[in-house]
Amino acid sequence: MRKIESVDFFYLSMPEVTTEGDGSQDALLVRVAAGGRVGWGECEASPLVSIAAFVCPMSHGACRPVGASVLGRRLEGPEDISRIAAQIELDSMDLLQAPHTWSGVEIALWDLLGKFRDEPAWKLLGYRHSFPKLPYASQLFGERPQQTYQLAVKARKNNYRAVKFGWGPIGRSDLKTDIEHFSAAREGLGKEAFLMVDVGQIFGSDVQAAALRLPALEEAGALWLEEPFHTSALQEYAALAQASRNVKLAGGEGAHNFYMARHLMTYGKVGYIQIDAGRIGGLGPAKRVAGYAAANGVTFVNHTFTSHLALSASLQPYAGLREHEICEYPFAPKALARDLTLNHLERDDNGYLAAPEAPGLGIEINMQAVKAYLVDVEIRVGRKRLLSSPDHF
Amino acid sequence: MRKIESVDFFYLSMPEVTTEGDGSQDALLVRVAAGGRVGWGECEASPLVSIAAFVCPMSHGACRPVGASVLGRRLEGPEDISRIAAQIELDSMDLLQAPHTWSGVEIALWDLLGKFRDEPAWKLLGYRHSFPKLPYASQLFGERPQQTYQLAVKARKNNYRAVKFGWGPIGRSDLKTDIEHFSAAREGLGKEAFLMVDVGQIFGSDVQAAALRLPALEEAGALWLEEPFHTSALQEYAALAQASRNVKLAGGEGAHNFYMARHLMTYGKVGYIQIDAGRIGGLGPAKRVAGYAAANGVTFVNHTFTSHLALSASLQPYAGLREHEICEYPFAPKALARDLTLNHLERDDNGYLAAPEAPGLGIEINMQAVKAYLVDVEIRVGRKRLLSSPDHF
Repeated sequence: MRKIESVDFFYLSMPEVTTEGDGSQDALLVRVAAGGRVGWGECEASPLVSIAAFVCPMSHGACRPVGASVLGRRLEGPEDISRIAAQIELDSMDLLQAPHTWSGVEIALWDLLGKFRDEPAWKLLGYRHSFPKLPYASQLFGERPQQTYQLAVKARKNNYRAVKFGWGPIGRSDLKTDIEHFSAAREGLGKEAFLMVDVGQIFGSDVQAAALRLPALEEAGALWLEEPFHTSALQEYAALAQASRNVKLAGGEGAHNFYMARHLMTYGKVGYIQIDAGRIGGLGPAKRVAGYAAANGVTFVNHTFTSHLALSASLQPYAGLREHEICEYPFAPKALARDLTLNHLERDDNGYLAAPEAPGLGIEINMQAVKAYLVDVEIRVGRKRLLSSPDHF
Repeated sequence: MRKIESVDFFYLSMPEVTTEGDGSQDALLVRVAAGGRVGWGECEASPLVSIAAFVCPMSHGACRPVGASVLGRRLEGPEDISRIAAQIELDSMDLLQAPHTWSGVEIALWDLLGKFRDEPAWKLLGYRHSFPKLPYASQLFGERPQQTYQLAVKARKNNYRAVKFGWGPIGRSDLKTDIEHFSAAREGLGKEAFLMVDVGQIFGSDVQAAALRLPALEEAGALWLEEPFHTSALQEYAALAQASRNVKLAGGEGAHNFYMARHLMTYGKVGYIQIDAGRIGGLGPAKRVAGYAAANGVTFVNHTFTSHLALSASLQPYAGLREHEICEYPFAPKALARDLTLNHLERDDNGYLAAPEAPGLGIEINMQAVKAYLVDVEIRVGRKRLLSSPDHF
């Protein structure tokens, strides 16, 4: 019987991390070994805290470290991954960080299983085909509308047919400036391209403040308005959805279990459900969300902002859903995220890309880059050294 | 202007921690200093991980350590606590563990503010009176029905007029055994006492398995059935609530923000909303839940299973709600939880207790006990030692 022999975490970071809303400034890579092979996954986010949740001492029966449910467990098929997930749900119930930690491990387990079976992860998840997706360039708004315009022009020149602007100044100054950003984005993109807007929860639970931006978003022909509110502000989501004519709401990247995503669809009335496989508990729950979305008239979209390992993972859960065509694509990640993998998912001549046909996630890790960006971590509790990252090599 | 000068964490643990569902086996105590005084709070749960979320390096603008929003900030009045909370919501949005960490800090801030103003925390929260609560003895089911019976008899002898049995064997063997436990509990308690049952999410999302237990719970006159499902399984909660005649559902201890608690009431149809101030983000959001519950015909109940510091904190958010009378009371905590404080909230002759009239939380920390149970923690990232607990003294 094949068992999970080891789980290693690699905390990688750019030399300098700034307060910009760019999630590619660090990464937590996970390597799982079983049966003489290894699989790779990536957790999103906060490397130190997610590592701590794997190695921490047990607090009580329902607050055990994630590692306790993983190490030494059987890994023969997908059902073993589900069983570990269910055990973590009970045994790490009171450990809030657990889903983020488990996500990267879970992804690595699918990668590993795919390598053993010589099949891509999406096949193991039950799909027959990996359909092409239309990537949107995901980037931050400019500081001023003129910069947003230039960024839009540049994205169009780079042959992107869909562009998302996010965060930055929106909701932080006045309504007029926000409107100028929206129309600058559309002007720069031209009439044809899809335009999406992400405001990063800036309105908290203030439905009216968000609703004030709707007419300008309609005017700019925005496909969706993303994360107007706190991930859990379901009633506010529903109220805004009702107030909107053409602009649909999008959200879900903060969902750390299947239920939260379901609630955004059922109660929050989002039109697009965006799932980060590195947060929701990995490919299993993300695939479940995709199935629920497809059955309920909601469009599934991946959420990813780091490496192409994370990108591949994020595509697997809806690779087989032909109609769910749009995908997030890290447009201008930091060097770390680019260097981390030897191969990359590039767009074809039509501007499309697809989850790889290669086994597992189909991504090769660049160990030279891992060494170059590695941050040394040591955690000691009492006399016990729980983790010391140089052991990894 | 008074500023938050320091935040120290004390990871305390029993020498041995077992897999039993007893949350009093360790504790994370928080001490905040400002203006020459200190306030105390307690986080629930997983000390190491919550500490890591306070000191971790920033990942990006929306994934900053909790400490970044706390240290050096103004602390003049309650509005300063709200402002810090709002900032953490945005700046630590992607740090899943943040609410658990912040909870203990927030509680300590109220304690500190109460000491400065010479007022109990519940007055600062806006209440005029602290009404007596009827504590229920909160304990685990026995291994076998006969032991459950004996525990019930013992609780009645100890003059408890309300008893909650939880976790243990329920849902893990057969229906018949569960029914025997329920009826043994009632038999041991006699006809008068309130009986509550907590099954610790054992049914996951299986409404039918939970519904099979309802007739026996009705028969035993259970006041509520607590946590039949995953904290976020709102549709399942609602379905079971609809299937029940007299037994109301209770839940909410896993809520780590106001919204999650509101959803359990609005969508999940619970009759009792149970809030752990040490998880939901402290007294502020817990008070907000209490107000929402009172306005919507739901009964607020504290959730607490550790020290009397945590007990006092858990009572503050609904101290002024006379009708919301029942309170959880750690019946048989580990020595650590008892030793941690110099004073304790004891029941009066009628078997009632109330949130203290003394300033802040009204609880004195036993520094001797803190030293005795202290677990040494060291976290190092790169060349930077982020935390080393012996510095605390």
